[in-house]
Amino acid sequence: MHTISDYQRYFLEYLSKKTITKEPKNLYEPISYILNLGGKRLRPILVLMASEIFGGDYKKALDAALAIEVFHNFSLIHDDIMDDAPLRRGKETVHEKWDINTGILSGDAMLINAYQLFENYEGDTFRELAKLFTKTAIEVCEGQQYDIDFETRDDVTIPEYIQMIEYKTAVLVGAAMSMGAIVANASEDCRSSIYDFGKLLGLAFQLQDDYLDAFGDPKTFGKQVGGDIIENKKTILYLKALEFASEDEQKQLRELFSLSPNDPSQKIDTVKDLFETTGAKDKTRLEIEKYTNKAFSVLETLSITEDKKAILKSFGEQLMNRSV
Amino acid sequence: MHTISDYQRYFLEYLSKKTITKEPKNLYEPISYILNLGGKRLRPILVLMASEIFGGDYKKALDAALAIEVFHNFSLIHDDIMDDAPLRRGKETVHEKWDINTGILSGDAMLINAYQLFENYEGDTFRELAKLFTKTAIEVCEGQQYDIDFETRDDVTIPEYIQMIEYKTAVLVGAAMSMGAIVANASEDCRSSIYDFGKLLGLAFQLQDDYLDAFGDPKTFGKQVGGDIIENKKTILYLKALEFASEDEQKQLRELFSLSPNDPSQKIDTVKDLFETTGAKDKTRLEIEKYTNKAFSVLETLSITEDKKAILKSFGEQLMNRSV
Repeated sequence: MHTISDYQRYFLEYLSKKTITKEPKNLYEPISYILNLGGKRLRPILVLMASEIFGGDYKKALDAALAIEVFHNFSLIHDDIMDDAPLRRGKETVHEKWDINTGILSGDAMLINAYQLFENYEGDTFRELAKLFTKTAIEVCEGQQYDIDFETRDDVTIPEYIQMIEYKTAVLVGAAMSMGAIVANASEDCRSSIYDFGKLLGLAFQLQDDYLDAFGDPKTFGKQVGGDIIENKKTILYLKALEFASEDEQKQLRELFSLSPNDPSQKIDTVKDLFETTGAKDKTRLEIEKYTNKAFSVLETLSITEDKKAILKSFGEQLMNRSV
Repeated sequence: MHTISDYQRYFLEYLSKKTITKEPKNLYEPISYILNLGGKRLRPILVLMASEIFGGDYKKALDAALAIEVFHNFSLIHDDIMDDAPLRRGKETVHEKWDINTGILSGDAMLINAYQLFENYEGDTFRELAKLFTKTAIEVCEGQQYDIDFETRDDVTIPEYIQMIEYKTAVLVGAAMSMGAIVANASEDCRSSIYDFGKLLGLAFQLQDDYLDAFGDPKTFGKQVGGDIIENKKTILYLKALEFASEDEQKQLRELFSLSPNDPSQKIDTVKDLFETTGAKDKTRLEIEKYTNKAFSVLETLSITEDKKAILKSFGEQLMNRSV
């Protein structure tokens, strides 16, 4: 087994070898641009790691890893258009640097390119990868649609919210790990268990994202603390707060989430107070723990050696103890 | 063998059985909407027809036919956003009826759904369909990018223009026919020849589209005659006219194509005159004939019975004698 930073390095080397700007330049330059904006490369690392967990060679998993990263970046380009986001990883988004049409078309080409990368696998492996990818990609679209729909609904339930982030974010983490298992020719059982492990960890990760956005350490968080509050995003903290708030607090919270003051600092403070007094902060931490522990208990059922379970568990713990 | 209108009916029956609006509705309703806007259903008919030409059962080709139609409509949704088009087949475009974000996301889901339909095929058939589809879909994106790039260039050559319409339009016609051949388990040679036949016919068809836009019979053409001239589109007529125009005529043509008068009738008349006097009209007809004849000569090399060649030829002739 290699280390996480090994996998990251191998992946980045492969990525730079594979991102050549062809003609027409206006189609392919935005693709190189977004793929080279950086990021943790979490998903491709998971593909490589999972392939070795199941006895495969990470080198054989590089194309699947790249497919997952290309797809993830396709979804970032299109989501950024939909969210009208000016920045991505601190740099201009594709539709800002070029235009919306370029973002649409380059994104489309990336989605197709992801499928193309699976062609480097033979027979059943190709089929299994493409099938899992398709199922996952459809769910990501559905998750994005639910996310958009939720913006204009004020009766979103917590199970609905969990399903939304499961589709929008978590299934791709599960699929990444399962693809590693597919490439390594792991059993059906292993593919399915590692998928569940990844998905549950992905859920915990996304809920933690919600949590850190309000309660992360400003020194290490990277993004602006309170960003979700500024944008009136109905995260798990907001939904939990509504669930446990008194009628007065509910009213106050809904009112605050209908405003967009020029200086949001007062609003952020009040909302964070409400997240604390209603118990939403603690309850969110409990949810994160719940999904993390669910992920770890799936790990127990996996037919792999204990030291490999320990590697996956330690990776999960690192992910969950992050402050970024 | 069945007739074209049989294939059309079988396809429409299959389409209506397969387009069920699932949740989230805002994702799937636009998909049903665009798929039910009508159209000639040329591409899926070609899949079914080609499958029977090569001894297959059209029923087995229905999923591939649907995949091609779903992909074609995905590209219409995204292209309509890029072209800011209000109408498609006389009805509101998806981004007009809903919004741009809905158009982007529903289109994405359709592209993925096309791949999903190939999962109904086993082993090598699945692989071959997905591979040809991916190659074609990438080329369609590249063709669309060239089309966009050409809008702001005034040095587009005729070979460049032909390559653009080959990628944007013709390869999908070739792929449709080749997919019918793949489903019918035809030989590699047959798959490749029918692809060339379809691509060449697709090229002729698209050039004829350019031609009819200016010189079609207003009674039967359906669309507004001169639409491309109004939009200053650099079609084959325009490029051929520039190639054979005197310096004065070139200047006049470039000037006319920089204007967008409120009443375009005078402009249309003058441009059409220039298309005639420069010989562009006749030369375009010759190009259309050239590609049609190239398609027919590919037909000669196909290892199928003469009566089947006659069916394909008559289909090609019908397509080329259309006034719509």
